[in-house]
Amino acid sequence: MAQGLLSGTVVLDLTRVLAGPYCGMLLADMGATVIKVEMIGKGDDSRAYGPFAGGESCYYMGLNRGKKGCTLNLKTEEGRAIFLKMVKKADILIENYRPGTMEKLHLGYDELKKVNPGLIYGAVSGFGHTGPYSKRAGYDIIGQAAGGLMSTTGWEGGSPTRTGTPMGDVLGGLNLTIGILAALNHKNKTGQGEKVDVALVDAVVSAMQNINMIYLNEGRIPTRIGNRYESTYPYDSFRTSDGDVIIGAGNDKLYATLCEEMGMPELKNDPRFLTVSDRVKNHTALKEIIETWTSKSTIDEIADRLNKVGVPSTPINTIDRIVKDPQIAGARKMFPVIQQPGIGGVPTTNNALKFTNCPADPEEPAPTLGQDNDMIFSTYADLSSKEIEELRAKKII
Amino acid sequence: MAQGLLSGTVVLDLTRVLAGPYCGMLLADMGATVIKVEMIGKGDDSRAYGPFAGGESCYYMGLNRGKKGCTLNLKTEEGRAIFLKMVKKADILIENYRPGTMEKLHLGYDELKKVNPGLIYGAVSGFGHTGPYSKRAGYDIIGQAAGGLMSTTGWEGGSPTRTGTPMGDVLGGLNLTIGILAALNHKNKTGQGEKVDVALVDAVVSAMQNINMIYLNEGRIPTRIGNRYESTYPYDSFRTSDGDVIIGAGNDKLYATLCEEMGMPELKNDPRFLTVSDRVKNHTALKEIIETWTSKSTIDEIADRLNKVGVPSTPINTIDRIVKDPQIAGARKMFPVIQQPGIGGVPTTNNALKFTNCPADPEEPAPTLGQDNDMIFSTYADLSSKEIEELRAKKII
Repeated sequence: MAQGLLSGTVVLDLTRVLAGPYCGMLLADMGATVIKVEMIGKGDDSRAYGPFAGGESCYYMGLNRGKKGCTLNLKTEEGRAIFLKMVKKADILIENYRPGTMEKLHLGYDELKKVNPGLIYGAVSGFGHTGPYSKRAGYDIIGQAAGGLMSTTGWEGGSPTRTGTPMGDVLGGLNLTIGILAALNHKNKTGQGEKVDVALVDAVVSAMQNINMIYLNEGRIPTRIGNRYESTYPYDSFRTSDGDVIIGAGNDKLYATLCEEMGMPELKNDPRFLTVSDRVKNHTALKEIIETWTSKSTIDEIADRLNKVGVPSTPINTIDRIVKDPQIAGARKMFPVIQQPGIGGVPTTNNALKFTNCPADPEEPAPTLGQDNDMIFSTYADLSSKEIEELRAKKII
Repeated sequence: MAQGLLSGTVVLDLTRVLAGPYCGMLLADMGATVIKVEMIGKGDDSRAYGPFAGGESCYYMGLNRGKKGCTLNLKTEEGRAIFLKMVKKADILIENYRPGTMEKLHLGYDELKKVNPGLIYGAVSGFGHTGPYSKRAGYDIIGQAAGGLMSTTGWEGGSPTRTGTPMGDVLGGLNLTIGILAALNHKNKTGQGEKVDVALVDAVVSAMQNINMIYLNEGRIPTRIGNRYESTYPYDSFRTSDGDVIIGAGNDKLYATLCEEMGMPELKNDPRFLTVSDRVKNHTALKEIIETWTSKSTIDEIADRLNKVGVPSTPINTIDRIVKDPQIAGARKMFPVIQQPGIGGVPTTNNALKFTNCPADPEEPAPTLGQDNDMIFSTYADLSSKEIEELRAKKII
């Protein structure tokens, strides 16, 4: 792999499943040495999630590409002592246990900072490490519902709806990565460590910034309004002869171009649709007019035609279309294939970080369980081959 | 404000509306000196978005809190020369123009790096700075639709659905922040600058990591399945006497506890529901059984009862409930009130970054248009008071 932005940074990754591993994945993609520390015999729960390729979980391989892997039983005194040696040599530790779990293992931030005062300790949990709900388990669906995302997603008169991906987990992982990297900058300047505590629920609430503002400053409770937006129109989905198409003509100029392209220039001066706020107010009437036009063509015909004149428009892509898209799959290389030893090429989804000087496209495979035990325990815990063999025999690693 | 993690870092923020400003907001919350550079006379488009307090946009104030503000006409030769002086003193520049706009202003990365080789140039756009769709305008709804999020959000047999917040913009802003901070670490070690190019569409695609994997490795196209998940059950919304409640009993242990609490221990051994994959397969039958229980109680009764026995459960919160929540609003301080001079307290939504040593809770107000012109142009462009007055007279600042 080419020199990455985070080359030389050592990360201990104790995380499982999605929110935490997503953070470790981004750090590894950017060149950090990410050491995945897993429970002996079992490993990350997601190793059991299908689909599988060559007996290994594709779910796990995608989120753990480019990481080194070791096994360690942290519940034993010996395992804990080895881990503390590794902490001394690490820059960053990430975990997504239920709050209190690391303290029970005597591995909470307060203990670890005694061993390594410069350590950056990153935690992501359902509700965070403080407050009355702190000890509650918080899965993605809890974050999406408690944080307000579900109550505002869906159709007028319909049910609250979750997003099609575990968005609470993803937002948690992204925020954790931000907190860690800011703390790493500070540590490199001052030597001071930091604990970063991200809650899935908070990450969802923060993503609702401009929607919350409607209530916070106007007192109105935002609810479900389908695919249209609070602040502009036409900016919605519209029926065509073979499904729905998206048109985003969010300002006066784009709206005028749309009217011309529809062959209805008179709509520009229609008193119902003069300004953005007029169009938001009279969105039902405007949608009906636009759909009399869109419904005579196919999705692709409308999207091609509007993009040619500069009006944002797109099909509502399913993944089978996205993997063939010349922009997303082609130019932006969003679906790299990782060579997994003994399995072959496993397709995965790239990160969204395109750097000019130090690219962050993933190339290295995910580890099998305990794959790098020898290298990791000799390099990061200063153990001899003999000591490593003994630990293996005792089932500590 | 207390010492922040990014204190001393200087950011030129040319961004408008949401995706870019969200990134600048996070950097400012963490203590960076973020200089918002706006077009003279008009400023960020979102200054015109309601609701308003004291004549200023609450939308703008929320996303631009803690930033310094100046006006500068970059289309004039003099304005451009001043900006280049500022670039020399900056660590980071962020922009969310349509790709090509900065080049037209002769302010593209290739020109700026000649002036400041260590500059970190961060761009967020619809489709990114490379590829056949690069020049297309890409708004949030385009990102959500083109990236696959809409096609997987919604109900079986129902329409593709966007999320209740501009999630494409938020994901773009979060990814831009990650790229910038990783590049800042590298720059502080090596002096080397970087261009970070984030596309809203890529950010959405990357958030679909584990959903894309279903197609990439199994060939099945994931579609809309309501509030349940692909991988586990019961993990869904359930009808109560006064609305829907969320229950997330995603593993065998939690499922067993749920069965006990419902007074139906025999369900644990029902052959239809023995394993996670059995329960996913027979989710319709299981939902019906659970709803016979949940429908006899209220949302809060179910959530309280299940949380007491450790089964994750929550109401589907609307924002009026969230602002009163003892965890989210109380312990986690997610709704700080910012004192805006001449206006008073303006409530806003916090970030999700909780640091132990260097807190990142916002305290400082957003700037009025051109508020800090004198300080900024004297400090960052070495202009005298007389020169600043002349520029003001010429309407360049």
